[in-house]
Amino acid sequence: MKRIGMLTSGGDCQALNAAMRGVVKCLSCSEEAVEIYGFLDGYKGLIYGNFRMLTGNDFAGILTKGGTILGSSRTPFKLMREPDENGLDKVEAMKQNYYKLQLDCLVILGGNGTHKTANLLREEGLNVITLPKTIDNDLWGTDMTFGFQSAVDIATDCIDCIHTTASSHGRIFIVEVMGHKVGWLTLNAGMAGGADIILIPEIPYDINKIIDAINAREARGSRFTIMAVAEGAISKEDAKLSKKEYKEKLKNYPYPSVSYEIADEIQKRSGKEVRVTVPGHTQRGGSPCPYDRVFATRLGAEAGKLILQGEYGFMVGYKNREIVRVPLEEVAGKLKMVSPDASIVQEAKMVGISFGD
Amino acid sequence: MKRIGMLTSGGDCQALNAAMRGVVKCLSCSEEAVEIYGFLDGYKGLIYGNFRMLTGNDFAGILTKGGTILGSSRTPFKLMREPDENGLDKVEAMKQNYYKLQLDCLVILGGNGTHKTANLLREEGLNVITLPKTIDNDLWGTDMTFGFQSAVDIATDCIDCIHTTASSHGRIFIVEVMGHKVGWLTLNAGMAGGADIILIPEIPYDINKIIDAINAREARGSRFTIMAVAEGAISKEDAKLSKKEYKEKLKNYPYPSVSYEIADEIQKRSGKEVRVTVPGHTQRGGSPCPYDRVFATRLGAEAGKLILQGEYGFMVGYKNREIVRVPLEEVAGKLKMVSPDASIVQEAKMVGISFGD
Amino acid sequence: MKRIGMLTSGGDCQALNAAMRGVVKCLSCSEEAVEIYGFLDGYKGLIYGNFRMLTGNDFAGILTKGGTILGSSRTPFKLMREPDENGLDKVEAMKQNYYKLQLDCLVILGGNGTHKTANLLREEGLNVITLPKTIDNDLWGTDMTFGFQSAVDIATDCIDCIHTTASSHGRIFIVEVMGHKVGWLTLNAGMAGGADIILIPEIPYDINKIIDAINAREARGSRFTIMAVAEGAISKEDAKLSKKEYKEKLKNYPYPSVSYEIADEIQKRSGKEVRVTVPGHTQRGGSPCPYDRVFATRLGAEAGKLILQGEYGFMVGYKNREIVRVPLEEVAGKLKMVSPDASIVQEAKMVGISFGD
Amino acid sequence: MKRIGMLTSGGDCQALNAAMRGVVKCLSCSEEAVEIYGFLDGYKGLIYGNFRMLTGNDFAGILTKGGTILGSSRTPFKLMREPDENGLDKVEAMKQNYYKLQLDCLVILGGNGTHKTANLLREEGLNVITLPKTIDNDLWGTDMTFGFQSAVDIATDCIDCIHTTASSHGRIFIVEVMGHKVGWLTLNAGMAGGADIILIPEIPYDINKIIDAINAREARGSRFTIMAVAEGAISKEDAKLSKKEYKEKLKNYPYPSVSYEIADEIQKRSGKEVRVTVPGHTQRGGSPCPYDRVFATRLGAEAGKLILQGEYGFMVGYKNREIVRVPLEEVAGKLKMVSPDASIVQEAKMVGISFGD
Repeated sequence: MKRIGMLTSGGDCQALNAAMRGVVKCLSCSEEAVEIYGFLDGYKGLIYGNFRMLTGNDFAGILTKGGTILGSSRTPFKLMREPDENGLDKVEAMKQNYYKLQLDCLVILGGNGTHKTANLLREEGLNVITLPKTIDNDLWGTDMTFGFQSAVDIATDCIDCIHTTASSHGRIFIVEVMGHKVGWLTLNAGMAGGADIILIPEIPYDINKIIDAINAREARGSRFTIMAVAEGAISKEDAKLSKKEYKEKLKNYPYPSVSYEIADEIQKRSGKEVRVTVPGHTQRGGSPCPYDRVFATRLGAEAGKLILQGEYGFMVGYKNREIVRVPLEEVAGKLKMVSPDASIVQEAKMVGISFGD
Repeated sequence: MKRIGMLTSGGDCQALNAAMRGVVKCLSCSEEAVEIYGFLDGYKGLIYGNFRMLTGNDFAGILTKGGTILGSSRTPFKLMREPDENGLDKVEAMKQNYYKLQLDCLVILGGNGTHKTANLLREEGLNVITLPKTIDNDLWGTDMTFGFQSAVDIATDCIDCIHTTASSHGRIFIVEVMGHKVGWLTLNAGMAGGADIILIPEIPYDINKIIDAINAREARGSRFTIMAVAEGAISKEDAKLSKKEYKEKLKNYPYPSVSYEIADEIQKRSGKEVRVTVPGHTQRGGSPCPYDRVFATRLGAEAGKLILQGEYGFMVGYKNREIVRVPLEEVAGKLKMVSPDASIVQEAKMVGISFGD
Repeated sequence: MKRIGMLTSGGDCQALNAAMRGVVKCLSCSEEAVEIYGFLDGYKGLIYGNFRMLTGNDFAGILTKGGTILGSSRTPFKLMREPDENGLDKVEAMKQNYYKLQLDCLVILGGNGTHKTANLLREEGLNVITLPKTIDNDLWGTDMTFGFQSAVDIATDCIDCIHTTASSHGRIFIVEVMGHKVGWLTLNAGMAGGADIILIPEIPYDINKIIDAINAREARGSRFTIMAVAEGAISKEDAKLSKKEYKEKLKNYPYPSVSYEIADEIQKRSGKEVRVTVPGHTQRGGSPCPYDRVFATRLGAEAGKLILQGEYGFMVGYKNREIVRVPLEEVAGKLKMVSPDASIVQEAKMVGISFGD
Repeated sequence: MKRIGMLTSGGDCQALNAAMRGVVKCLSCSEEAVEIYGFLDGYKGLIYGNFRMLTGNDFAGILTKGGTILGSSRTPFKLMREPDENGLDKVEAMKQNYYKLQLDCLVILGGNGTHKTANLLREEGLNVITLPKTIDNDLWGTDMTFGFQSAVDIATDCIDCIHTTASSHGRIFIVEVMGHKVGWLTLNAGMAGGADIILIPEIPYDINKIIDAINAREARGSRFTIMAVAEGAISKEDAKLSKKEYKEKLKNYPYPSVSYEIADEIQKRSGKEVRVTVPGHTQRGGSPCPYDRVFATRLGAEAGKLILQGEYGFMVGYKNREIVRVPLEEVAGKLKMVSPDASIVQEAKMVGISFGD
């Protein structure tokens, strides 16, 4: 008999339900009796003992369903060690709820912040298994995270739609793609959508190079330009600022986001009309794409297997097309960023995509 | 032998190509020899004599293609009678190009502004046939415009995606749907997406009623609320302002659009987190939906028939499920708005949707 | 206090859930207390007293869900008056269950067969309200049925996919679209998908005319032909047979369906390779399209209104863009077919589509 | 100055255009002048000297377009060495056309058969670079082929649609997925669509095990079963037959395909209604999914790089998430099949999917 706690934490993401279904289907197919306790709204549910028992029925028909049946919330890691407004020690509270329910293991689905907390709980002696969820694909220790390909699909759809308008009107269009720190999503959606210019946080841009790229297109007879710009795109000058200085700069920032600043600069320097589209949270929602459903199911199955074997302290990840177990301490606190030298970046440049660098 | 000029004007929209294909296919299937001159970038092409001859091949495979193969531009009607920066009389220039090419007729695809100009050209003695293109479905004299249903599909997809995030995080989400003056698109996408609150220009809102609706949902156990808000949503107070006063107010407006103001108000009054998503121009792009393809093809066929019969001065429209011809002078300058008493509004209210009124 | 029974009968179809949600949302928004009894698997549930009580929760989140939460089954009308294998009088059993539960009304969602039975129950004294569900759009008394536009979308997607293969390989492709008796679905999907030839039951075909159309395309330089063929397409010769003779013929039919016979004939006469694709039941499934969601919601709301007003014996339908109530006795037993003279058929012919007639 | 011939061969497939665009964009971005000769309809175009010169314009806007702008055909490898009906030596003819046009290299896009012929041409002394195109993902030497993920998406959509019907009616549904020899497509679409039973050529099935799986589902309360069955699914008995014996058996086969035989067997043994859906060629068509667009672009870029470097005789493939060059002689004539021990198969079994073995 196993008693498993489960929670989803951080930003919403496709295939969370598919992954949980994978875990539970795997456990139900085993000989072992299993009880599943779902904590509601991420770590909050674990902290405040807000949970419900889940049966196989709860997981029927959710393979294709977006969101998470458990709800989620963002609880910043740096606040985890601080008491809440009533003086409650959050880490202690989580441990107490874990022990009170006599759990064998916690299955935690989340991204970077979530993994830091998960690793903290592991250090505190709890049995933890994690699953790599994020549309950013920026988790260390795994080639892929679930949610990523679904988000690429949505952002690409958006660029596809913009393409027809851009070409009909001869305009410059910026599609702002999610990603404050890493550019995987923007890079892939940009390539898939046939963007002419792609700006990502890892490759600071020079506005003059962007203008050059637009002019070069015009010289070749193209009357429009599509730009895929990550939320965290940054100019070469700003990249030289210290973190503190940049934060300071953003405080008095007159733009809703960096895309609008870039649009403004291009308009000023080129006299061309630039439009900005921000698909925003749509990139996190909707039914997971088939790729993510298969992938999340496989990850979930492996997590189930680890539980049955009593192997804890791992993130289930993906390496060289195989599902693997990665020690949690190797994952926590590290980002998997796009290297400017990555072959995918070089290939993008080879087909004429400008990164403004 | 017929010589036909063709142009697409105003904002980009799905099924423009499908409609033009319908016209040309119909003409090609007739006994009569036909030459098609496509004017580029809307009325601009007609003004400055920028055109190219089109053959059947240009129209092959474009049924499913978004945008317009002729390009488009917005030329405000009120500037039509004013000379351009070089002193050129635009109306005269259009007439000259029409006569120089010895055209039998102009086929003009566009929305409200486009129809005003088309009617002006008719009054000037040119043979004109128009097709009702707009995602807003606000053209007088026709039950439906092409582009509308495709835009509903895209805006609904967006609300669907937001639904999963909203329910996972227990938040209030505003999806800003296109429509500065009329609310058909917001109303339909809102109903299709299961929005709880729909705000449209024709039904001014009271922010207190919106808060009431959100609280009532919470009281019934719902932890999230989805709002579909038209770009032109307006509060009851602002609706009392004169046009001039409202314009003045917007001059110093601190928000990117009215959705952000509403979000801010809700946050202030309820303490709840509100997120805004703006699908923007994506609503105009991409492949037309099957409904629009059939509809645009039918309209195009009828336009072809009118040309063959030498019947000019009509918009081809749709009434009571039949394709009809509507005299241009009846169409130009009028908007088809959502009546607050319309049965679809009543039905929306009957299933619990709040309009904040 | 109202007590309502509800059932879905006949072939599966998109937006059944959306329509039921509309009814229940409308009733829940009224002052009146309401109890909903859902009968499972269509009339079977009513006959055998197989039901469950439904609350608002059962209808949350089902707007976008395909299928029917109540299950469905086909019970041919002609068997309704015959006792079952245990001698049970089915009509009597339905009446008894109706009275036992002290129902005020039955809400029945279905197509042609379903409406015959619904009308029978009305004649037997039960209060009945029906909603027009069918992908065939062949119900008398309403311009539109829900499910139809969603099925058009799926069948069109299918033709779109086939288009790329057909054009790459220079082949003739038949896409067999659902519809044994009426051709609305084939006609609309065919037009939306850019089919070159459309065969529907209402317009018997001459195989020679089909060959002519294919040859004419080839003469114009087209290396492929797409045909949208209804399941019930019929040749001019077969159309002359009596119903009995035709049935007899089909008994020894060597083909899985008529599309294969047509493919065979074309191959024999033209030497060209013909491929058949049968999307089949996929046309009934998946999430309803936005059009159907809005439409089904409006129909459901009106049904709710009728219930609250105590007005029974109607199908809620759609006429000239308004939701209307149609006496059940006018609907039952009649088919709404495509007239060969319908304007949509003429328009299809005007753009060069052949019906093989 | 480089002179490049290009052709697409074998079954139609998504992202062929995207891949060719990648090659040409890469070449156009280089300093070197390049001429591209597109051979029409696969090897046929090379044999009979049927080609046209292509410019950058031909490749604009085709990233998202299904099919192939060059056309394709299947020319079985075993016929390649045989003279055609006019006595023409095909291999010699291809060589002559290659030399006549003074080509530096042939870029050949295709699957298994295509690669055999490509390797033959390499052995004959021609410079050849190939790109791995097939929805089957069965090419040796590469982890992935383009077209595969797009086909998975379409087949999964199909299963999704069937799911709603199956659950509404409580039936058994077979979706027949493409794949005569290998099961990657069926396996992935089956897992993504939540199929309960997956039958692939590499894992022969026992009909009794299938019945057992269906009964076990029923015992757990599930009223429907979804089966994803590859075109080449084979029973354990048939797998024991020699190739010749199996061919002989199929000669008098009374079923359109093996799915119908399986459906028949299940119906006979269980008395349950089984429906078969065959999406067929739709799986090869339509716009490539974003994954395939990025992937095909990357492969194309690398092919361009090889050409610029004068490195020939390679297939551009994908290994451990990197684009790699694989010697053609290692690829030709080998199939990459699903091993029954593959981890993805084990994971599928862990979540309760039956392979009937």
